[in-house]
Amino acid sequence: MASVLSDLSRYLVVNGAKYMIKRAIAPEDEDIPDVTTPEEEQPDPVTEEVFSSWALFILLSLLCAALWSSYYLQQRRIKAIHETVLSIFYGMVVGLIIRVAPGHYIQDAVKFKSGYFFNILLPPIILNSGYELHQANFFSNIGSILTFAIPGTFISAIVLGMILYIWTALGVDGVHLEFVDALAVGATLSATDPVTILSIFNAYKVDPKLYTIIFGESLLNDAISIVMFETCQQFHGKNVTFSSLFEGVGLFLMTFTISTIIGISVGIIIALILKHSHIRRYPQIETCLVLLFAYQSYFFSNGAHMSGIVSLLFTGITLKHYAYFNMSRRTQIATKYIFQFLAQLSENFIFIYLGLTLFTEVELVFKPLLIIVTFILICVARWCAVFPLSRLLNFLYRARFEKFNRTNYMNGGISSQSIPEEISHSYQMMIFWAGLRGAVGVALALGIVGEAKSALLATVLVVVVLTVIFFGGTTASMLEILGIKVGCVDEHDMSDDEFDIEAPRLALTNKPNVMSNRRFNPAQQLYRKASDNNVIRKSTSNITSPYIKNSGSLHSLSSQHELMNDDDEFNTSDVDDLLAGTVNVNSDIPAAAASNQPSAGVLGAFLSAEEHAKWFTKFDEEVLKPVLLDISPTPGSGEAGSPTNSDNSRERNA
Amino acid sequence: MASVLSDLSRYLVVNGAKYMIKRAIAPEDEDIPDVTTPEEEQPDPVTEEVFSSWALFILLSLLCAALWSSYYLQQRRIKAIHETVLSIFYGMVVGLIIRVAPGHYIQDAVKFKSGYFFNILLPPIILNSGYELHQANFFSNIGSILTFAIPGTFISAIVLGMILYIWTALGVDGVHLEFVDALAVGATLSATDPVTILSIFNAYKVDPKLYTIIFGESLLNDAISIVMFETCQQFHGKNVTFSSLFEGVGLFLMTFTISTIIGISVGIIIALILKHSHIRRYPQIETCLVLLFAYQSYFFSNGAHMSGIVSLLFTGITLKHYAYFNMSRRTQIATKYIFQFLAQLSENFIFIYLGLTLFTEVELVFKPLLIIVTFILICVARWCAVFPLSRLLNFLYRARFEKFNRTNYMNGGISSQSIPEEISHSYQMMIFWAGLRGAVGVALALGIVGEAKSALLATVLVVVVLTVIFFGGTTASMLEILGIKVGCVDEHDMSDDEFDIEAPRLALTNKPNVMSNRRFNPAQQLYRKASDNNVIRKSTSNITSPYIKNSGSLHSLSSQHELMNDDDEFNTSDVDDLLAGTVNVNSDIPAAAASNQPSAGVLGAFLSAEEHAKWFTKFDEEVLKPVLLDISPTPGSGEAGSPTNSDNSRERNA
Repeated sequence: MASVLSDLSRYLVVNGAKYMIKRAIAPEDEDIPDVTTPEEEQPDPVTEEVFSSWALFILLSLLCAALWSSYYLQQRRIKAIHETVLSIFYGMVVGLIIRVAPGHYIQDAVKFKSGYFFNILLPPIILNSGYELHQANFFSNIGSILTFAIPGTFISAIVLGMILYIWTALGVDGVHLEFVDALAVGATLSATDPVTILSIFNAYKVDPKLYTIIFGESLLNDAISIVMFETCQQFHGKNVTFSSLFEGVGLFLMTFTISTIIGISVGIIIALILKHSHIRRYPQIETCLVLLFAYQSYFFSNGAHMSGIVSLLFTGITLKHYAYFNMSRRTQIATKYIFQFLAQLSENFIFIYLGLTLFTEVELVFKPLLIIVTFILICVARWCAVFPLSRLLNFLYRARFEKFNRTNYMNGGISSQSIPEEISHSYQMMIFWAGLRGAVGVALALGIVGEAKSALLATVLVVVVLTVIFFGGTTASMLEILGIKVGCVDEHDMSDDEFDIEAPRLALTNKPNVMSNRRFNPAQQLYRKASDNNVIRKSTSNITSPYIKNSGSLHSLSSQHELMNDDDEFNTSDVDDLLAGTVNVNSDIPAAAASNQPSAGVLGAFLSAEEHAKWFTKFDEEVLKPVLLDISPTPGSGEAGSPTNSDNSRERNA
Repeated sequence: MASVLSDLSRYLVVNGAKYMIKRAIAPEDEDIPDVTTPEEEQPDPVTEEVFSSWALFILLSLLCAALWSSYYLQQRRIKAIHETVLSIFYGMVVGLIIRVAPGHYIQDAVKFKSGYFFNILLPPIILNSGYELHQANFFSNIGSILTFAIPGTFISAIVLGMILYIWTALGVDGVHLEFVDALAVGATLSATDPVTILSIFNAYKVDPKLYTIIFGESLLNDAISIVMFETCQQFHGKNVTFSSLFEGVGLFLMTFTISTIIGISVGIIIALILKHSHIRRYPQIETCLVLLFAYQSYFFSNGAHMSGIVSLLFTGITLKHYAYFNMSRRTQIATKYIFQFLAQLSENFIFIYLGLTLFTEVELVFKPLLIIVTFILICVARWCAVFPLSRLLNFLYRARFEKFNRTNYMNGGISSQSIPEEISHSYQMMIFWAGLRGAVGVALALGIVGEAKSALLATVLVVVVLTVIFFGGTTASMLEILGIKVGCVDEHDMSDDEFDIEAPRLALTNKPNVMSNRRFNPAQQLYRKASDNNVIRKSTSNITSPYIKNSGSLHSLSSQHELMNDDDEFNTSDVDDLLAGTVNVNSDIPAAAASNQPSAGVLGAFLSAEEHAKWFTKFDEEVLKPVLLDISPTPGSGEAGSPTNSDNSRERNA
């Protein structure tokens, strides 16, 4: 037996070695992509499987390393370096190894493909963003978000494109560009990255307003970059007239509107299907269907030349706003966990992929001068977009406030001197700083056509990596330097999900599950209002509410945050306290609200999301929710409504 | 504005049409695979993205349709047709449409690729199987499982291969095969499918013993088929000697052992990492890492020419047995849901994929006679494997029982006449019937080399689809005809997860989460024992325990099952009842156990998993669990141990 085994192991080793040799002597000419015969194109699936297994093993190991580093950095409270930088670094190291190793199979397998990026890696991130979005914050800042996202990206792309065109026309690098191609590169490099900056902001629990603006901008400007890029590509080799600009703008606006409609429609369709079917009895199928439908909105939108990102974002938002309440409890939890899980993996993977690509992409022509110039240019372009637009927003805000003041507070309202700015200087600086570029740019750059393709792709790739390393690595310090308020409590810490999983169902037994979401609404609503109010206080003011973590130095705050996380039981005990003292919460919040200066209170009323969107809230409560939700969720009627509701659900289940 | 919009929409339409035309006039020559120039190989990513978006949209729609049908069939209690048959049918319809539609981009995109199957679709199913496995059942039937899986697959492959070789040697179809190639086809067609049959068995809650045997066999024989196929391929074009057979057997045994070791090692490594790190404080990272590590075992194993399926299966089992208890509560729930979700999607997708492939795979040469002969042959081969081996098992069981009887029950034990057979005739028939073939066979068949490739691939594909339609469609009726016990309570109905999510934490507040898993262990343990005992009762006996759903006609049972699911609140109320009356449960189970006939009780003791694996259970409890688990899970010490345990966890968190 032993001899048989040794024979076999020898056999296996020899066999393995044979494969190795076969790959080692395989043609290695990297400049000529594999033009293989049909027979070779489908090699022995067993061999192919072995190599794709190793490629996947390497990628998974990289992901593990990245996640482990992320844990380690958080655990050791290391702020100097960010996990995305490490991810890129790991990717680069392994990319280098793969590059110098013999054989090209693994190198081909791990190469950056824009299809993988747009079809696999991006959707989970967008969907999770929409699903996790703090809707009140998002819609109360929608003006600023759209301003930075739409005109901001246009300005950035045009500034960048124009200067780049002039630079290349000088002929220093031997790179020649048409004007539309330069604009296309500008568009490519105007998509800011929604991943890195948000992971940093999440870690520090940055002021929700700033968070929301940067988050919304970075999500939406990806869509705009893509549309701009596609438009520019269509003009490649054609004459560009001045009317093309308007055509482009119009095209974009139409795309944006239609995409939003697609997204919202899909969300509403899901809500209606969940409401009018019994699918919640089969939660496993339900979970799958919710995710599939959401993805369909993305692919449908992309297929119809619309913006999948915008559609998916709004599908996610609509899902959470309506469909969520029609789901079975298991699906609510499962969707939340699955979306988060997929997004987390994608986020980590994207940066590894970028790092890998630096070495495994074979068609790169590096032009150092062009890279340096482009890096400077993207800073200039972002500067041109952020600061003038911030001033415009501040001006509009001030004008509107003065009008409001004149109308409502004749008798010595607040002097215009004391009005805090909509986008303060430190916010402007942070928005500028948050303009690091991500994988969307690289994925777009793969589509650049023309003779300068290789040089431009290399430039975009290196610039993207540089921005992530430079801006990503310094964001934490910048937050401290600018005195941005951090350690704001995250709404999700008290979100209904963690809640319900861990929460006692003391009073809820025999009640439909859906009700448990709404039981806490009155308190949450109050809490949200208070926190909205707090947002507009100057970040230096002393806040006494126990629910708003105090501002101050980054270190004390983050350590406070760490302390709170130190115990696995944190959520539970917190939630238990909350449950035990619901009255306490209710009495706390008005106290916190009362501690506002009068002006903050007025501003709060003036600015709150409810004020902005009163008509929608009313329409939503009175028309949409009764139509779309299974049980009408009038806040406060949780107790009174429960008999009817349980009757309803019993009826439906009969 | 309106005119601009209309201009734009015209622009868009024209643009869309242009794409359509561009694709429509694209070369359609299907027999010559795309040998494109490098420039064309990477087409405009935007165009590519649009088409891959449509391809993905179609696939997602198919998945939605399949899932919706599954819901509809379950909801309407339609037994005549099974969802996998519908999935294949949908796939075929859409495949046909894609085939006749102009352009080949989508056709190429949806083509069956063995890499996709082995690297993306298969792992979630295997991992979930291991994770959800009823370990006591699996290991108490490990003998039967291995017998059917290892010699069974060998017999099947050799019988099939030999007769096929003789048939093709007759030259009726003009297909000529080498002997090793015929054996390779035999191996390809000996992999039974773990998906369809189990989904049916799950739906009917078939007798756990039969379920476990078929489940275990179908999981493991995939691995054996793959190894056999690879071995045969290596002998392609070489002389085969008699010693090759032994070489093959030895190779397989080594592969199996090493793969198992890899799988268990990875599971243990995860348990140790979770135990000795603080990663549970970051449950999102923890969840990702658990899944990534598990996948790594699959890819590592495949990469090392071992069996990824076996490794991943044992990783899943080890994960659930040890690592699960070291996870944070959130990760426990999240992994369960995520694994289930991924497996569900994969399962549905595989059959759609098979259906699609029938029409989108271009290299198929259909030989009707060969297909019919092969279909008959696989039935013959399975017959040759199942019935003799069942007899062998029954013989061994009887011999062992008699020895046991002689030793322990001198004074007139049970006469050998009254011993129920290990594998009764109806079980044998069902195991035979459950031998439908699946996607593993097709994926392997893509790797067939030689001139007969196209004909063999077509044959395998059609035969696989036929078995799924024929055997899959008739399994439900067969269960009824054979009088197999259905409606057995699924352990998962009472599993700890559903439990804890829905359960009140009445007594658990301020206790570590981990404890809540173990609180119910004594009762569960008792329950499990009782259910193990019940397994070996004759399926016709009347069982009064409320925890074992009664046997009887299929319809009454399944409707009973439906009724129980009719209410979303079922689990909750069930769990609440259970909680309110833990004493009640404890008193119920002994009653159920007492209602066994004496012989069943003796057999229960004789056969129970604990008896079989006493030494392992002891080793596990005394050595492995203390080393691998965070808190030693001595059953029954839940209450007494909790102060120490909370101290422990506090210490670790300090």
